[in-house]
Amino acid sequence: MSGILSGKKGIIFGALDENSIAWKTAVKSHEEGAEFILTNAPVAMRYGEIQKLAEQTNSEVVPADATSLEDLDNLFNVAIEKFGKLDFILHSIGMSINVRKGQHYTDMNYDWTQKGWDISAVSFHKVMKTAWDKDCMNPWGSILALSYIAAQRVYPGYNDMADNKAYLESIARNFGYYWGKEKKVRVNTISQSPTPTTAGKGVKGFGGFLEIADDVSPLGNATAEDCASLCVMMFSDYTKRMTLQNIYNDGGYSNTGVSDELVNSYFAGKKSEEE
Amino acid sequence: MSGILSGKKGIIFGALDENSIAWKTAVKSHEEGAEFILTNAPVAMRYGEIQKLAEQTNSEVVPADATSLEDLDNLFNVAIEKFGKLDFILHSIGMSINVRKGQHYTDMNYDWTQKGWDISAVSFHKVMKTAWDKDCMNPWGSILALSYIAAQRVYPGYNDMADNKAYLESIARNFGYYWGKEKKVRVNTISQSPTPTTAGKGVKGFGGFLEIADDVSPLGNATAEDCASLCVMMFSDYTKRMTLQNIYNDGGYSNTGVSDELVNSYFAGKKSEEE
Amino acid sequence: MSGILSGKKGIIFGALDENSIAWKTAVKSHEEGAEFILTNAPVAMRYGEIQKLAEQTNSEVVPADATSLEDLDNLFNVAIEKFGKLDFILHSIGMSINVRKGQHYTDMNYDWTQKGWDISAVSFHKVMKTAWDKDCMNPWGSILALSYIAAQRVYPGYNDMADNKAYLESIARNFGYYWGKEKKVRVNTISQSPTPTTAGKGVKGFGGFLEIADDVSPLGNATAEDCASLCVMMFSDYTKRMTLQNIYNDGGYSNTGVSDELVNSYFAGKKSEEE
Amino acid sequence: MSGILSGKKGIIFGALDENSIAWKTAVKSHEEGAEFILTNAPVAMRYGEIQKLAEQTNSEVVPADATSLEDLDNLFNVAIEKFGKLDFILHSIGMSINVRKGQHYTDMNYDWTQKGWDISAVSFHKVMKTAWDKDCMNPWGSILALSYIAAQRVYPGYNDMADNKAYLESIARNFGYYWGKEKKVRVNTISQSPTPTTAGKGVKGFGGFLEIADDVSPLGNATAEDCASLCVMMFSDYTKRMTLQNIYNDGGYSNTGVSDELVNSYFAGKKSEEE
Repeated sequence: MSGILSGKKGIIFGALDENSIAWKTAVKSHEEGAEFILTNAPVAMRYGEIQKLAEQTNSEVVPADATSLEDLDNLFNVAIEKFGKLDFILHSIGMSINVRKGQHYTDMNYDWTQKGWDISAVSFHKVMKTAWDKDCMNPWGSILALSYIAAQRVYPGYNDMADNKAYLESIARNFGYYWGKEKKVRVNTISQSPTPTTAGKGVKGFGGFLEIADDVSPLGNATAEDCASLCVMMFSDYTKRMTLQNIYNDGGYSNTGVSDELVNSYFAGKKSEEE
Repeated sequence: MSGILSGKKGIIFGALDENSIAWKTAVKSHEEGAEFILTNAPVAMRYGEIQKLAEQTNSEVVPADATSLEDLDNLFNVAIEKFGKLDFILHSIGMSINVRKGQHYTDMNYDWTQKGWDISAVSFHKVMKTAWDKDCMNPWGSILALSYIAAQRVYPGYNDMADNKAYLESIARNFGYYWGKEKKVRVNTISQSPTPTTAGKGVKGFGGFLEIADDVSPLGNATAEDCASLCVMMFSDYTKRMTLQNIYNDGGYSNTGVSDELVNSYFAGKKSEEE
Repeated sequence: MSGILSGKKGIIFGALDENSIAWKTAVKSHEEGAEFILTNAPVAMRYGEIQKLAEQTNSEVVPADATSLEDLDNLFNVAIEKFGKLDFILHSIGMSINVRKGQHYTDMNYDWTQKGWDISAVSFHKVMKTAWDKDCMNPWGSILALSYIAAQRVYPGYNDMADNKAYLESIARNFGYYWGKEKKVRVNTISQSPTPTTAGKGVKGFGGFLEIADDVSPLGNATAEDCASLCVMMFSDYTKRMTLQNIYNDGGYSNTGVSDELVNSYFAGKKSEEE
Repeated sequence: MSGILSGKKGIIFGALDENSIAWKTAVKSHEEGAEFILTNAPVAMRYGEIQKLAEQTNSEVVPADATSLEDLDNLFNVAIEKFGKLDFILHSIGMSINVRKGQHYTDMNYDWTQKGWDISAVSFHKVMKTAWDKDCMNPWGSILALSYIAAQRVYPGYNDMADNKAYLESIARNFGYYWGKEKKVRVNTISQSPTPTTAGKGVKGFGGFLEIADDVSPLGNATAEDCASLCVMMFSDYTKRMTLQNIYNDGGYSNTGVSDELVNSYFAGKKSEEE
């Protein structure tokens, strides 16, 4: 490790367990010299092992429901008390009740839709609004959220999370405009390969997306570790003028139509179906 | 007029007054041989002149709040009673309370955000879910919603409508997948030039977007009439295999970086500012 | 047919045989009231049956190599002599010698690359330059070329045609800017589903793309007839302000990540491979 | 500097003088621990000061015309002799004779078009083919070329360089597929803000693009230094699974429709024109 985050302070949302991208980002950020506060929803923390991560990275844990402006206010107050100004924020939060309960996209429960939208997308706006009101980001700071290509193309089973990710990416652009113009802070999203995190595995058909994506991608799927490395890079000073972008970290999947491997398995399948 | 919608039946949402794109689409659809029901929110109809349009196009008006599943149920029951199956639906609905009340994007009222999201975006899902449950669309039917390029790029002042349009376009793709696979029905959005409708004029800085877009666009801004013509084309059998698309009807604006006219006015402005 | 091209005059490049998109576009344009000149490369005409089409559509055939400014000059002179000004041009031309000869993309013959680029892409510029110099397009005329999604994503086997299509689409935008600003003429490309034309079938692995695309697309692949209908729409006055666009006519393929059908065949194939 | 390129070897094309992005990338790569060979066309080197850079970075200079397979063969032989295998290649080459000679896009000299295409785009294929044939890239190596947003949108005056950049980006995707699948090597392009390099300043209207882009971009234009930092990041192991991407390094320009600054100057200009 090269210490490329030396002296940088931040907040990392969403480290549930050691499969989490946020978890691995915390580990790598620590190795690169960053200090940060770990946070997650109180309910998520009950099942998670975030204290282990806190010890490993010498971090404090502050529970916060990212849909609650009160919780966020408290979280940022603690962070400011501890660090003064911040250099980075990672938003790795997403959940759809329709997905969890197996409610089909054509038969949504709209109350659940609204809750999932609030948790998965609006929370990113609330996090940024809290930081904005407290004017607590250093110039050239970096705010980052995790997205998925379902924001651009249909993956049946991903359900209303697709719409939430589209909204999330839009927030990144629109709030990012003001962060850039007024505070010299950048805001981006990373569109990551399907990743076998605890959250990811909850999506119906997820295993299917994952294997196909791995076979299509020229470099194979980006792992959680790969994503953590890219997050570190996006927090660092090497990427100071990248903002309002949705960055694909996906082994080339997004720009590959078909691969020979996909074609071969597909036709083997067609053939076996005919037999 | 060539009668390219001859025999087609539909529902048109959102004709407020004769500046509305939905209004002009109704007029043109009628001229092309279509029959349809006009609908709008009860509150919008109070101020509008929709009865005039109904007479002109020999249509029935059925008030419906597009966020209310009950109202939509009633609306579609009337339509089915009248027409049997449907061939087209136009969703031309959008409203942000944050915009109306001048609440800045960085200081959103989240209750208003939620209401605007429900009205501008989720309503499109509710409309399609209602039609889906009633299985009332003919094969090769066409469902259409109106969007704006703020779903892709930042236009300060467009506020949370940008996020709503991103969500709306995502709904078109995700619900469109099932409509295509199971019902052979297509779902698209049209991303229209800024248009001086009553709704458009409510956006802060709207006049600015409009003039700049007109100067940048190689063909100038698409008018409400141009949009109505394209809607008719998208309802017709000429475009049967287009689906899940966001179609730019914008005089080429979306793919033009700068025009000579923009550059000239910009530098004239810079010069006059320096004097 | 509704006569939506009544009174319109044009030139159609690339009708080889009755599987050609250009052929079907000619037939439909004729049915819709258009008059046009048919043209193709002398060498292509030898094997084609273009005279049959000429009789069917009451058209004249003028051979022209679209890479030759001389041939284009003569072609447009004949057209202008006959029609005065023109309303539409269809460019349906593409050929890669590397593809034909089975030369792998990583081992291109660069002379062939240059020839394919000239035929498939630069020819579109030459066609427009000829029309531009002769100032022979009516206001709101429509110039159209056919493209393929390989301009955006990788389809192994499509070879340097992918690069040619990317260049072609760029020409549409860049020349389209001037056509719009100075002549009120629109320029677009249609990105069509893989289509079993004589040209398409020459691409290695083409059958693979075609079947997978058909299984992924919510509405199935757009046929040559569907494309011809869309061409007619794009020539008509219903789409007057669409320009500089690349329009996907693909049954929704471009915005669908995976379909259930693809996933099922893929896993059946995986399973059969393991056995 | 953190030594994030420690031990990495490469080739850098296109360092003309100290304004060049390639020059600054060489300086930063050296500071980060990389070793490399510098190369440029013999004709470009006559006017440049590349020897100064070679001394500063302790590098060897090997002249090569990137359109000549012979020159490339020699260059790579020298590099392999020196380094064994390579970890990175930067292609920063572009030139349009039509631009240089002021030939308008609608009146191209097609011989010049062909030469500019060969120099600016095909050369990237030739570089990769040479490296491919020699099998000289280490796994997870990184090949990078510089592009511009004119590949997506029209900037009048950028002329046929727009088409060349579109072709260049397509090569990155298509060759990148094979590099990924067979060699675990990534290929990307960076779409950089307009940058006042010696090459950039040759484009008519360049100053206009530059100032407008700077005013539109939330973070202002990315500088050549910013681009060099991003190139270093893309060579490093932090971005191992990013491939086939076109990465915007542009202060957010690409996703910003208008900024308040643009609107203000534009209207000041309109007003002053009316006076």
